[in-house]
Amino acid sequence: MNYDHIFDQAIDRLHAEGRYRVFIDILRNKGAFPNARCFAGHNGPKPITVWCSNDYLAMGQHPKVVAAMEEALHDVGAGSGGTRNIGGNTHYHVELEAELADLHGKEAALLFTSGYVSNDATLSTLAKLLPGCVIFSDELNHASMIAGIRNSGCEKRIWRHNDVAHLEELLAAEDPDCPKLIAFESVYSMDGDVAPIHAICDLAEKYNALTYIDEVHAVGMYGARGGGISERDGAAHRIDLIEGTLGKAFGVMGGYVAASRKVIDCIRSYAPGFIFTTSLSPVLVAGVLASVRHLKASSVEREGQQAAAAYLKRAFADAGLPVMESTTHIVPLMVGDPVRAKKISDILLAEYGVYVQPINFPTVPRGTERLRFTPGPSHTVEMMDELTAALVEIWERMDLELRRAA
Amino acid sequence: MNYDHIFDQAIDRLHAEGRYRVFIDILRNKGAFPNARCFAGHNGPKPITVWCSNDYLAMGQHPKVVAAMEEALHDVGAGSGGTRNIGGNTHYHVELEAELADLHGKEAALLFTSGYVSNDATLSTLAKLLPGCVIFSDELNHASMIAGIRNSGCEKRIWRHNDVAHLEELLAAEDPDCPKLIAFESVYSMDGDVAPIHAICDLAEKYNALTYIDEVHAVGMYGARGGGISERDGAAHRIDLIEGTLGKAFGVMGGYVAASRKVIDCIRSYAPGFIFTTSLSPVLVAGVLASVRHLKASSVEREGQQAAAAYLKRAFADAGLPVMESTTHIVPLMVGDPVRAKKISDILLAEYGVYVQPINFPTVPRGTERLRFTPGPSHTVEMMDELTAALVEIWERMDLELRRAA
Repeated sequence: MNYDHIFDQAIDRLHAEGRYRVFIDILRNKGAFPNARCFAGHNGPKPITVWCSNDYLAMGQHPKVVAAMEEALHDVGAGSGGTRNIGGNTHYHVELEAELADLHGKEAALLFTSGYVSNDATLSTLAKLLPGCVIFSDELNHASMIAGIRNSGCEKRIWRHNDVAHLEELLAAEDPDCPKLIAFESVYSMDGDVAPIHAICDLAEKYNALTYIDEVHAVGMYGARGGGISERDGAAHRIDLIEGTLGKAFGVMGGYVAASRKVIDCIRSYAPGFIFTTSLSPVLVAGVLASVRHLKASSVEREGQQAAAAYLKRAFADAGLPVMESTTHIVPLMVGDPVRAKKISDILLAEYGVYVQPINFPTVPRGTERLRFTPGPSHTVEMMDELTAALVEIWERMDLELRRAA
Repeated sequence: MNYDHIFDQAIDRLHAEGRYRVFIDILRNKGAFPNARCFAGHNGPKPITVWCSNDYLAMGQHPKVVAAMEEALHDVGAGSGGTRNIGGNTHYHVELEAELADLHGKEAALLFTSGYVSNDATLSTLAKLLPGCVIFSDELNHASMIAGIRNSGCEKRIWRHNDVAHLEELLAAEDPDCPKLIAFESVYSMDGDVAPIHAICDLAEKYNALTYIDEVHAVGMYGARGGGISERDGAAHRIDLIEGTLGKAFGVMGGYVAASRKVIDCIRSYAPGFIFTTSLSPVLVAGVLASVRHLKASSVEREGQQAAAAYLKRAFADAGLPVMESTTHIVPLMVGDPVRAKKISDILLAEYGVYVQPINFPTVPRGTERLRFTPGPSHTVEMMDELTAALVEIWERMDLELRRAA
């Protein structure tokens, strides 16, 4: 048994497939995002523009968020010092949970250290509490939902992406008396399409299933108060559990679920991933509180983001670049090959100071490797025009097809 | 199928066992820890002394840590904005990983959003990479290690706590050619005892097993530079993976593993719990960097903690209180009943302004419920004398046995 040999092979497989990942070492310039500095180990930091951040609304640099974090840092210090049950339950946590419950019109909410952990811990615990539960999972659900479903040990049925007819077929095939849970996302982050929430809720009612929605790529960005697609579509009250993140549009870090008081009490009391971990730093929680409160009242950021996304999609399409269908703020360009996607990304960074990460397997299926742009309210029209021109130049240089309208 | 009824039953079971948890709502007073404020919903915040924090060395309020966080907040903003691979790899992350690798004398280190996630993600991924791997796990390993082992899907063997003879028996019974991983902790946090690291490493060498140690209750606190028990015992070079937390002695939040470059590259490339999650906020990472660097050079905090723990253990023993055997900074008082433990804790908070959380199942086995005190360099002799007197009064009031020396 030669352990080193096995580890070498594991890494070699990644190199062979062209999907060995090199992390780009950057520092953002607060107050000037999407501008940042890139550390490449030579000649000092290089100025870049970030095009792939999930700080979708640039709230990570909002003066209210920064001020709230600074105040908390000076009031209570760096960390919580314990789990929620043992010394780590601060007044900030209590306030933020109330704020998030209100955001979604639910009785209660529960914070986790990340969105990944909220999905993993909640789905695995919820399903374990329901003897014989069957979970119905959209085939494009995020890795963290898949982890939670797998870790629940329950039976699962995978329905074709956003295909409610297929979902109904699978629901109808189960024992009417067995507990059922339908798990899906609102915005699918790599394609930018949206789930038919009402149609799914109709089926949940017809077949007496619980519903669980992941809104991490929607909270803060959709709905009049930033409650996500479920708010925009007037469907939040029909969904049992709404999961969200504090690390994307809200600009900080952490995750949560909102639901009835009873369901939250169960997760709080039974989920190892919630119980046995140091709670979120009060500094982060204070920042998120300011961010959520701001985005409940202000739509300027949401409108700026939608305008930027519409402009960039049109610019890409007009230039003949292979922009994918997307009904949201996400602007993916299909490349279809991991080596080529990485090469385009490398040229953009080295020659144009544009930072966009190539997206490869396992984040997307093999053969659908892409570049994923996330324009926001701080990306200017000039930046978008320059980006489009740079991509066209690279597309031509690499002899890739441009499908320009006649 | 009545979902509400099932959730009600789940909560009722907790009430019936006396282990339904009520989170104490507190805010610490930065610069004055262990002093804090408790929000009980009436008459405004009440001053308390915290006796159960895992901010063991009060680094969460250290001026260097607070200053570093403030600087990062103003330099780069609140959150990282992405996963490590997609926009969330900041220069702070790169620097901290180098600092932690150096702390343990390893080639590389990898940050996670929490210690829980580092155990879960690393153990499950490592074992999956080794076909047919058998994991040998100490019976008192933390919930996060158990989660990682379970989620790996591997065969596991549980060895009796710290019993190397039993471990050898189990190792000898396996096929010599199958991959083996021995997983254990250095300091067991609820009892305060320590693993026989060298003896375990001897067996690992004899049976060609990898070793994985959880040092979350030891890093920062043991060894000349805070490298943990493995540094103190001169055993770090014999261990393949050392896992630690940034949320206890280092005072902030997050987790990590340190190991060979090859092993870290595998975990980095294959662990869903690392890949698919927003990276630690650069604000936190900057704070930890300052904390780790400080504790590498300063032993004042470690010495203060050891002195306080020794004083409190002696004071409890002299007063006849049932202090448990502990060779570390952890001072547990055995109560043996969840209802009684909660009652003592409630009286301490309401009448004495002392906050110590009762520890119940599933954190400790049923029938071993306890109060767990974590005195640190900021707890004064006066505070410890007052605490001891309060406990004696409560013990007498509740007719509990005091085993005073003749």
